[in-house]
Amino acid sequence: MALRARALYDFNSENPGEVSVKENEILTLYSETDIEGWFEGTNGKGERGLFPASYVEILRNDAASTFNNNSCSTSGDSRYANIPPGGFDGSYKPQNKVENFSKPSPPGFSFAAPPPQQQPQHAYQQPSQGSDDDWDDDWDDSSTVADEPGTGGGRYHDFEGNGPSTYRVSTSSMSRGNAQQAKSSATVSRNLNRFSTFVKSGGEAFVLGEASGFVKDGDKICVVMGQYGPEWQENPYPFTCAIDDPTKQTKFKGMKSYISYKLTPTHTHNPVNRRYKHFDWLYARLVEKFPVISVPHIPEKQATGRFEEDFISKRRKGLIWWMNHMTTHPVLSKCDVFQHFLTCSSTDEKAWKQGKRKAEKDEMVGANFFLTISHPAAPLDFQEVESKIDGFKTFTKRMDDSALQLNATVNEFARKQISGFKKEYQKVGMSFKFLSQAFEMDQQPYSAGLNQAISFTGDAYEAIGEYFAEQPSKDLDPIMDLLALYQGHLANYPDIIHVQKGALTKVKESQKHVEEGKMDRTQADGINERCNIISCATLAEIQHFHHIRVRDFKAQMQHYLQQQIAFYQKITGKLEEALQKYDNA
Amino acid sequence: MALRARALYDFNSENPGEVSVKENEILTLYSETDIEGWFEGTNGKGERGLFPASYVEILRNDAASTFNNNSCSTSGDSRYANIPPGGFDGSYKPQNKVENFSKPSPPGFSFAAPPPQQQPQHAYQQPSQGSDDDWDDDWDDSSTVADEPGTGGGRYHDFEGNGPSTYRVSTSSMSRGNAQQAKSSATVSRNLNRFSTFVKSGGEAFVLGEASGFVKDGDKICVVMGQYGPEWQENPYPFTCAIDDPTKQTKFKGMKSYISYKLTPTHTHNPVNRRYKHFDWLYARLVEKFPVISVPHIPEKQATGRFEEDFISKRRKGLIWWMNHMTTHPVLSKCDVFQHFLTCSSTDEKAWKQGKRKAEKDEMVGANFFLTISHPAAPLDFQEVESKIDGFKTFTKRMDDSALQLNATVNEFARKQISGFKKEYQKVGMSFKFLSQAFEMDQQPYSAGLNQAISFTGDAYEAIGEYFAEQPSKDLDPIMDLLALYQGHLANYPDIIHVQKGALTKVKESQKHVEEGKMDRTQADGINERCNIISCATLAEIQHFHHIRVRDFKAQMQHYLQQQIAFYQKITGKLEEALQKYDNA
Repeated sequence: MALRARALYDFNSENPGEVSVKENEILTLYSETDIEGWFEGTNGKGERGLFPASYVEILRNDAASTFNNNSCSTSGDSRYANIPPGGFDGSYKPQNKVENFSKPSPPGFSFAAPPPQQQPQHAYQQPSQGSDDDWDDDWDDSSTVADEPGTGGGRYHDFEGNGPSTYRVSTSSMSRGNAQQAKSSATVSRNLNRFSTFVKSGGEAFVLGEASGFVKDGDKICVVMGQYGPEWQENPYPFTCAIDDPTKQTKFKGMKSYISYKLTPTHTHNPVNRRYKHFDWLYARLVEKFPVISVPHIPEKQATGRFEEDFISKRRKGLIWWMNHMTTHPVLSKCDVFQHFLTCSSTDEKAWKQGKRKAEKDEMVGANFFLTISHPAAPLDFQEVESKIDGFKTFTKRMDDSALQLNATVNEFARKQISGFKKEYQKVGMSFKFLSQAFEMDQQPYSAGLNQAISFTGDAYEAIGEYFAEQPSKDLDPIMDLLALYQGHLANYPDIIHVQKGALTKVKESQKHVEEGKMDRTQADGINERCNIISCATLAEIQHFHHIRVRDFKAQMQHYLQQQIAFYQKITGKLEEALQKYDNA
Repeated sequence: MALRARALYDFNSENPGEVSVKENEILTLYSETDIEGWFEGTNGKGERGLFPASYVEILRNDAASTFNNNSCSTSGDSRYANIPPGGFDGSYKPQNKVENFSKPSPPGFSFAAPPPQQQPQHAYQQPSQGSDDDWDDDWDDSSTVADEPGTGGGRYHDFEGNGPSTYRVSTSSMSRGNAQQAKSSATVSRNLNRFSTFVKSGGEAFVLGEASGFVKDGDKICVVMGQYGPEWQENPYPFTCAIDDPTKQTKFKGMKSYISYKLTPTHTHNPVNRRYKHFDWLYARLVEKFPVISVPHIPEKQATGRFEEDFISKRRKGLIWWMNHMTTHPVLSKCDVFQHFLTCSSTDEKAWKQGKRKAEKDEMVGANFFLTISHPAAPLDFQEVESKIDGFKTFTKRMDDSALQLNATVNEFARKQISGFKKEYQKVGMSFKFLSQAFEMDQQPYSAGLNQAISFTGDAYEAIGEYFAEQPSKDLDPIMDLLALYQGHLANYPDIIHVQKGALTKVKESQKHVEEGKMDRTQADGINERCNIISCATLAEIQHFHHIRVRDFKAQMQHYLQQQIAFYQKITGKLEEALQKYDNA
């Protein structure tokens, strides 16, 4: 039975492999599983190709369809109910590697293995949207990974239409919570590109004054004016959280297995057990809630070998890094959903579900998030803001380039140490051993000491070869972990910058409208003020980024050098031991 | 005008590229310059190919031929008037790498670049025979090298027929000095293979009692019974000799240039200047004089770049090693020609020429050398001798194999350090630099310290890359120098062993003759006694070899490890310096 769908909007193909569709056109789909936001199918003219999944609505004849009986695929579907690249002002096109990590691209591109220099070793990936309340179903990373590679994606999540069975995109650009929302009174036109991050993040709705919600005191997020500009007010109760004891758990009489991690926050000292899917769910909530905050990416999913020691250890390290960035972020560390995740008892299922539902029903997400921001009294100079943002954009581009290069170099250096360097040292060791064996053919008693010393030297070089092979896990791997985490942040920033730039454009538009007499000044002042809030938040987030960047890279470089020093000292020690053998030879 | 030659003996081609010739057959030569002991030409049947140069006699119509007007080519010719591989008892065929270094092989094989694992990095080569008295002619290594590659050769020097204009091989197997020599009274038959080292070294002549000469007291060479068997009596006046100040000298108004080395022996403290050709001449005298002593090979000749600093430094190091083995050899260190070389004033041309002529007219060479040996009273047990010699033969084979392997490994290791290792470290350095440059885009004052520290770290890794590239000249090159010197010795031993084995075979033959009544016991006893002398000398030389081997390898391994330790300490120091930069970052 052919799977059919109806086009909700016009879509004009721009790239090879895409087909154009007209609103209301009936389409045939090859699969109901989208590929990173795209469906493959045939349009009314019989042309075959790709079109955005979010532009269509699947038509179902059978209400009792098996669709959605699997919560995993639901999760997958709704996660990728995102949209093709397209910019706020049409000029914002994917053009650099940073953006490659943050935008969906047609599967023809993203499915092909990217060239190694384009792909960080440890790609952190984006979350699945929390799907439904069946939390204890076997909803784990194993089940979604086969048709959802870790690449692509970004933050183009569909914050509208939570009903997982449709891809309907509302013609209203209002964010979730629009039932309670004030009617729009803005005359500044909405962006026609409803797939712009600015729109989807709720940035536009907020700027246009469409966001509304009841902000409790506890929800307040403060931006203060610091030495270097706006910054997030520090968390007055800083804490950290250890991640230990990854242990394999089973359920359904051993038919399903998963890894559980023990999380121990320092502010409660109560350990809780969490699975990867919990991290994944949390990540989705955070991305949804905080439009201009760079939520650290969680470690990538993996299809096979999930229970292998190396993988578990690597994932744990990734989660530790992630946790570190979570707990040190003044906003993220304090937010309810994160606190729920950290503190809710693993055995109190009811409490967990309550907290989960509450988080999923949180109204202060997207556009409404901006309502919670308390900012310094003095408004920012928008020209200065624009210049700072542009500078930061250039900075992230350069940093991403150099991180990519460093990652490739370090990865290759590690590979060389594990293979080539080890081999060379061990070949030298073996040749010394071979020489000592030849010398042993001579039975002269006065040569026995020398033979042993040369043999020991051979062993020493074989050991040094091993040292080289073992070293990267101690010093280069942590650097790659760090780079992966930062590459995740750098992939977030184009969207963050995009939201701020969208707001600034609205300000310019409104000024023009006022000059033309199409808008009254009060309304324009509101837009100005709300743009000021977005700008404060964006600059605070950028400031935070620089602070943790300097902190992390300093610590990691020190760690790397300390490890390297210890490594060469170990080699020296081994050689000194060998040298001593000659003393009485 | 075709160059013609007459075959002196039958030669049956055994390998591709060779042609068979019959005694008295008239041959056409393509060149009168042999290629490592082989002529290329056409036989009577018109077949073209190679045959041994020593099997033929060049026919000259014109006595005023330009042949020999160049003393260099004379030197070359007489040096290579040697013979194709062939053994004393027919069973001694080239079969291993040791022998590959000591036997001539058809140019088709030796001219082709040998595979790296078969060819030591520093091949020491054999000498040209001192040619004539025109010592001050421009007879230098540059002029002979073009048609005399450093490979091949060994010790198959033509000790007969000093007249350089012919390749005549005397039908008498007597050594030089046969004018003064007693008529042979032996009935033990001479070896039919007149190209055997046993014959050519004078070993056969001596065993058969054909050697005679007036041995002065000063010529006496003592073999004493030591802890581990026969050994050379130590030189009671040990000395060393420094080789310094290689300086470029010119003559003929600057038309000819050469390098002169300053030699300062510790027993005279009078420096003398010597050129490579003097070493070469001396080496030829020593090889001629001492049949069962492993004369250290002098460093190889080189066609181009003789005046380049690297080459001069490398040659000097080779000559220092050579000198070390000369001065520590109990027999070689004391011999007249070496003393003349070390002590004769460089400015006293007359004295030099006198000493040179005396050395070239020395009668106590080859067979007569054995006359000078004073040996322990108790005769050796020939079975034990045979077993020791066989053991040593196995040892040299194994040592040669392992030296070859170690040399290849070390050579490759050096190459890797100079290229690959350096590159990897410098790539890491550059990536750190690139990162620091990206970070400098951020103008935050609090990141300046980190940026500088990362930049310094980048520089440190670039420096470490350089350290790797520089290191092999400090530690691996000396190992290769040592191996080259020992590979030279190992190439000498098949011939030394061959002489001893030849003598032993004569003893067995004579015993058989006595049993058959074909020889009287007195005569057989004489053969026995002379074989005992050769055996004493051979075992003393082997014992000396083991002593210097243990001494040299111990010292060199210690030096290598000390250098390696210093190297890794230098790296550690650089990294510590980099680490400190982060302290205030």
